[in-house]
Amino acid sequence: MFDTIIIGSGPAGLSAALTLKQLNKNILWLGKKDLSFKINSAEKIRNYPGLIEVSGKEMRDVFLEQIKKMDLEIVDKQVTGVYPQTGKISVLCGSEAYEAKTIILAVGVETVKPIAGELENVGQGVSYCATCDGFLYKGKEIFVYATNKNYEHEAKYLATLAAKVYYCPIYKDIDINMTNVEIINSRPKEIKRNGLRKKDIILSDDRTITVDGIFMLKDAVSPSVLVPGIETENNHIKVDRQCKTNYDGIFAAGDCTGRPYQYAKAVGEGNVCAHSVVAYLNQNK
Amino acid sequence: MFDTIIIGSGPAGLSAALTLKQLNKNILWLGKKDLSFKINSAEKIRNYPGLIEVSGKEMRDVFLEQIKKMDLEIVDKQVTGVYPQTGKISVLCGSEAYEAKTIILAVGVETVKPIAGELENVGQGVSYCATCDGFLYKGKEIFVYATNKNYEHEAKYLATLAAKVYYCPIYKDIDINMTNVEIINSRPKEIKRNGLRKKDIILSDDRTITVDGIFMLKDAVSPSVLVPGIETENNHIKVDRQCKTNYDGIFAAGDCTGRPYQYAKAVGEGNVCAHSVVAYLNQNK
Repeated sequence: MFDTIIIGSGPAGLSAALTLKQLNKNILWLGKKDLSFKINSAEKIRNYPGLIEVSGKEMRDVFLEQIKKMDLEIVDKQVTGVYPQTGKISVLCGSEAYEAKTIILAVGVETVKPIAGELENVGQGVSYCATCDGFLYKGKEIFVYATNKNYEHEAKYLATLAAKVYYCPIYKDIDINMTNVEIINSRPKEIKRNGLRKKDIILSDDRTITVDGIFMLKDAVSPSVLVPGIETENNHIKVDRQCKTNYDGIFAAGDCTGRPYQYAKAVGEGNVCAHSVVAYLNQNK
Repeated sequence: MFDTIIIGSGPAGLSAALTLKQLNKNILWLGKKDLSFKINSAEKIRNYPGLIEVSGKEMRDVFLEQIKKMDLEIVDKQVTGVYPQTGKISVLCGSEAYEAKTIILAVGVETVKPIAGELENVGQGVSYCATCDGFLYKGKEIFVYATNKNYEHEAKYLATLAAKVYYCPIYKDIDINMTNVEIINSRPKEIKRNGLRKKDIILSDDRTITVDGIFMLKDAVSPSVLVPGIETENNHIKVDRQCKTNYDGIFAAGDCTGRPYQYAKAVGEGNVCAHSVVAYLNQNK
């Protein structure tokens, strides 16, 4: 059993990981190996103390170097659910489960609002995880929505399984060329059930596509989908000054706890979370 | 009138200053030109995201470069009091006064507890500011307590005014050699009134020194001395998740708001303060 599982590899997750590593805690850090920042390559970050006028990419490179230097490892798994139990918390990544005494949620914020019918159908035809649920759609027809280019390889993977993929990317520079992939240029606006097993996706141009499954590949999912029963406020995880959530042993940091959506704020809360985890572990020995 | 006055030049103050500068606010930043961190030269900082295993001095040098690059200026004044008034807040630095719509307190934390009788006699023989109050003791006898070497030049300045200085430094490497300065190697443990104008200082070796004035030169003073009426909790300034204090328009960040005493936490709160200031200014146009 881990002392803590950190979910998310943005600046909040990094800050928590650095501090807990230094304090010799036994951690599992789940996230993306390239950190998956919402990096706008043009953007200059001018207000992060210690990094002078860096681009998002430069900041990421420094962070990656620091992770290596501190001998930290990011395990690239998509978390599909966090379930508090007696004396431990289970984290599911598809069919794999991990257990920890505490959890730090540094899961970012949904930049794209859920569409109508999305949340109601999670686990019933709507999935956020290609590697977890892809095999369910072998030989079937699926709709794949992707908010950024990082998800293109997941779409390609899904296209090796499914008979037909309707691929709906909302980024530019699309580079996918497979005979069973059809690019959809309009946006999905609603998901409706169609009989027992099918789903209809209504597009912004009012076309309807009928499929067996829908993958919504995006940087963050609603906290209440990830952690059933977690208390939220305006779709942010509600925390106190110690970054505690309503669940004992579950803490949250960064954009998922609310504005300002800033590197400095995220890094600060990641640090606070790490110290709250240590205090919690000491109290619950 | 300034949009905001930032008091303190540690990482919390820096973070607030960088963000408010970027947002084109009209700020006055009061602090120490060398930032005055509690730098332990041996210490390695391993858990601040973006700076890989730096010493305190290396971190300070990066911060100083960033301040220069962002065209920020630290005005070296010792704040003696913050007074909320109708529609504005006054900041006193000895006999000088500045006004602002908002204040960010990033004043650090007292690492040395006040001694018995200290707080009761502030402004009545006990001072925290050599440049503000030194002239009051021309030709008199004073006791000067200093927590670090940065204050040595202030002690020397006081010795040019006073007839006699009892100098009680709690750092090593003391370099003061003036005929009217006597080094005291024991610590002060209590201040008592002696008649109408004199003070007795009882030392840890039970000696008593009688003087006209006492200077306590240290990195931070009690928040309630600096801002009369500010709400505190365990001698920390009480703030909410937006870093608001009990006074409208006064925000606080960093060590002064409580543990963990960490660079990352301070930087995060400085950023939150800056955004809270902007929201406040927009609401109170």
